[in-house]
Amino acid sequence: MTAPAASFVDACIRFLGPSHVLTDPRDTEPYVVDWRKRYRGDACAVLLPADVQEVAAVVRLAHEHRIAIVPQGGNTGLAGGATPDSTATQAVVSLKRLNRVRDIDPHNNTITVEAGVVLAEVQARAKGAQRLFPLSLAAEGSCTIGGNLSTNAGGTGVLRYGNTRELCLGLEVVTPQGEIWDGLRGLRKDNTGYDLRDLFIGAEGTLGIITAAVMKLHPAPVAKVTALAGLASPHAALDFLSMAQRHAGPLLTGFELMSDFSMRLVGRHFPQLRYPFGEPHAQTVLLELSDSESDDHARALFERMMEEALAEGIVEDAVVAENLAQSQAFWNLREHIPLAQAQEGLNIKHDIAVPISSIGRFIDETDAIIAQAVPGARMVTFGHLGDGNLHYNVQAPEGVDQKAFLTEFQTPINALVYEQVHRHRGSISAEHGLGQLKVDEAMHFKSPVEVRLMQTIKAALDPDNLMNPGKVVRWNAHAGKENTA
Amino acid sequence: MTAPAASFVDACIRFLGPSHVLTDPRDTEPYVVDWRKRYRGDACAVLLPADVQEVAAVVRLAHEHRIAIVPQGGNTGLAGGATPDSTATQAVVSLKRLNRVRDIDPHNNTITVEAGVVLAEVQARAKGAQRLFPLSLAAEGSCTIGGNLSTNAGGTGVLRYGNTRELCLGLEVVTPQGEIWDGLRGLRKDNTGYDLRDLFIGAEGTLGIITAAVMKLHPAPVAKVTALAGLASPHAALDFLSMAQRHAGPLLTGFELMSDFSMRLVGRHFPQLRYPFGEPHAQTVLLELSDSESDDHARALFERMMEEALAEGIVEDAVVAENLAQSQAFWNLREHIPLAQAQEGLNIKHDIAVPISSIGRFIDETDAIIAQAVPGARMVTFGHLGDGNLHYNVQAPEGVDQKAFLTEFQTPINALVYEQVHRHRGSISAEHGLGQLKVDEAMHFKSPVEVRLMQTIKAALDPDNLMNPGKVVRWNAHAGKENTA
Repeated sequence: MTAPAASFVDACIRFLGPSHVLTDPRDTEPYVVDWRKRYRGDACAVLLPADVQEVAAVVRLAHEHRIAIVPQGGNTGLAGGATPDSTATQAVVSLKRLNRVRDIDPHNNTITVEAGVVLAEVQARAKGAQRLFPLSLAAEGSCTIGGNLSTNAGGTGVLRYGNTRELCLGLEVVTPQGEIWDGLRGLRKDNTGYDLRDLFIGAEGTLGIITAAVMKLHPAPVAKVTALAGLASPHAALDFLSMAQRHAGPLLTGFELMSDFSMRLVGRHFPQLRYPFGEPHAQTVLLELSDSESDDHARALFERMMEEALAEGIVEDAVVAENLAQSQAFWNLREHIPLAQAQEGLNIKHDIAVPISSIGRFIDETDAIIAQAVPGARMVTFGHLGDGNLHYNVQAPEGVDQKAFLTEFQTPINALVYEQVHRHRGSISAEHGLGQLKVDEAMHFKSPVEVRLMQTIKAALDPDNLMNPGKVVRWNAHAGKENTA
Repeated sequence: MTAPAASFVDACIRFLGPSHVLTDPRDTEPYVVDWRKRYRGDACAVLLPADVQEVAAVVRLAHEHRIAIVPQGGNTGLAGGATPDSTATQAVVSLKRLNRVRDIDPHNNTITVEAGVVLAEVQARAKGAQRLFPLSLAAEGSCTIGGNLSTNAGGTGVLRYGNTRELCLGLEVVTPQGEIWDGLRGLRKDNTGYDLRDLFIGAEGTLGIITAAVMKLHPAPVAKVTALAGLASPHAALDFLSMAQRHAGPLLTGFELMSDFSMRLVGRHFPQLRYPFGEPHAQTVLLELSDSESDDHARALFERMMEEALAEGIVEDAVVAENLAQSQAFWNLREHIPLAQAQEGLNIKHDIAVPISSIGRFIDETDAIIAQAVPGARMVTFGHLGDGNLHYNVQAPEGVDQKAFLTEFQTPINALVYEQVHRHRGSISAEHGLGQLKVDEAMHFKSPVEVRLMQTIKAALDPDNLMNPGKVVRWNAHAGKENTA
């Protein structure tokens, strides 16, 4: 450990007490490796402050000793954003002890939570007040709301309720100088200055540490009903989306696309999950309605919609879930795609978004480009069509060694896919963030003006580059300094 | 005119041509006075660039000559944000010639418009594509989308669709250095760095000039139905709001509160507008449902809701509009309150927001405080209860001279109201922005940390303070410089 790091750790031990400053590698292990085990770092210490005042004090100590800080929530990120580098000079600040629900206000439809509250707990507390907190994603049992905010997490409810950004009204943040910004406002309208809230959301801890938030709640729907439809192409799925939005308006809360090969993979590895149609379809769409009236109302709406779609030849076949169990069974098909992929072996993953109207062309073109580059490559394409967000994953051809495939093709296939995303004015990271995984690609594809704006903001708010350095943006100490006339 | 200003104006004439550089006071008059005529400025010139390249070139010239720029849209702002100061050294840059609809994409539910497109035109173009652009406000026939974005305008659709911020997916911006940031992305999900978009939205032209935007469209509802309810108190209105949200979920698109005195004023000055209840109620609520099914479906939903509210004693009386004409008549009552106020005479206006759950207490307490300060003062309280946003206006006691009342009481009553807003963690400018009207108040009520964050961002992006100086935030050239450890 370097001398400044040792002196910083001593100061933290004096302030937080030895049990909240972890330095033994057996204790720090869970905090210095990301959960997919793609990144392993080393930290001078893992700090466990109890509240916002302790977080602020720790940041002031770090500032004084010039120690870089890596904030961490549930450590379930997919881009290495919460993993320290390997120099053993950075400190992980875990927010997990800031786990209080400070307030729930059903009349204002808000809940005020600390950063370390687990997402499932926020959902449960909302439900207890007859409200819905609609953010929902695979890691909800262990991810924390602070991490969701810092990465602007997406998930399955975005079509109707938006990303985490759209669910947040106010924040409490510790600045890089260790001051506390109390922006915990629970207001739907507030036009009194710059939107600091949205600057910290999605910044992955590089501009400050989110310690608490006021989150929006929604009225709880009384019924959720799902349906499946089989279609001939992504283009048909787009027409179907427009029709579903016209019929159901804001009641449509889910619209997920699943390619034929995705369904075959689920069938192969989870044969107990039944695909409800007699024959395969090039694309299957899962729809969800959330209704304030009744199950019957939602089902009747679905049936009118499906009748029209069948009559117009937009869908080839359709089935509406008859009960909660069947609704869940349809969701199971969708949720088992990533698991079936994992069973099948390694693949090259992409979390991309394009304008919804471009999805059909994007898939057609990119599939053809990849087929030319790797004949026989199998496309596991699925995702949140209603948000323009695809998990566009490339699996080795049948019988080809997976590891060798990855070694040879990961870099060129990433380049092909990202180039296509760029051509369609899309995003190379729709919902997972940049972390350390995609910083270089982001800096490459963004315009120099956009990179400079990001660097200017980073250098102004965190001039010593102590907040999660190396994540999200490449450091440029001089950014903005040349702006003076 | 100062020498640098004269030299700048010459350069602009050479670049834009003399017909697009206004200097004659008869030509510049409409651009240097705000439409409420509360602010009168003087400009070295009014510049009328035709496209984003011309805007960028003008900003580069201004940067070179160190001339401050005041961007202007439809000049309908309520806080003096688009009016130059009186030194004749600033240039107004009008965006009105950037008035092209660049693209409309119904499958992506987006429209790409230049800053100078009038709001009503955006609404009409959306309607032509069987879509809804839900932003709606009194000035929609003359305000422009660039101004709506720069002030994050609110209006009557916020309960369901959000403020202008929530309706925007991407921006094109000319930076203070005259570079063009092309952030015109039409994506629902994009987690690749800092949220520059939301930093420019609501910044009132102090960080750059918005020249174009990708705006969200929504499916067009097939039916809009309104209803009125009479209630005993703001507290009952809150209970009623919760009930309405439970019944109607996202179909509830309007929930407006109108005090008894507001209704009496409308009755006095517009006797042709009929209040539909036999007797007055302390509060009247206007509700609107936007339905994807049918008029009948919306009306049936309203009737179930009203039956329950009457049975539980939450509302005293209720009526559901039987047809479009009656729906419009109910909206007319609401929309004529500001006009009736103007007929009645001058009053002291406040555009405030508090958490929705606090509205009842806020009104009770503040009414009592004002009654003590000015016995007989008449409260014109109305607004977007569903957003926690009240127009809380104070009219002179019956028979008191209005001008003398304003002179004596405007400052102390503002102080009393803002102090109450602050106590309830509210906003002193819910939807109108700060402009030059409320900068001092905002700087007073915000914490030093928040002011410093705003000043740091301003000084980093616009280090010469040339973008709409004096608006939104007090200039501090050293903000952020002391951040270094």
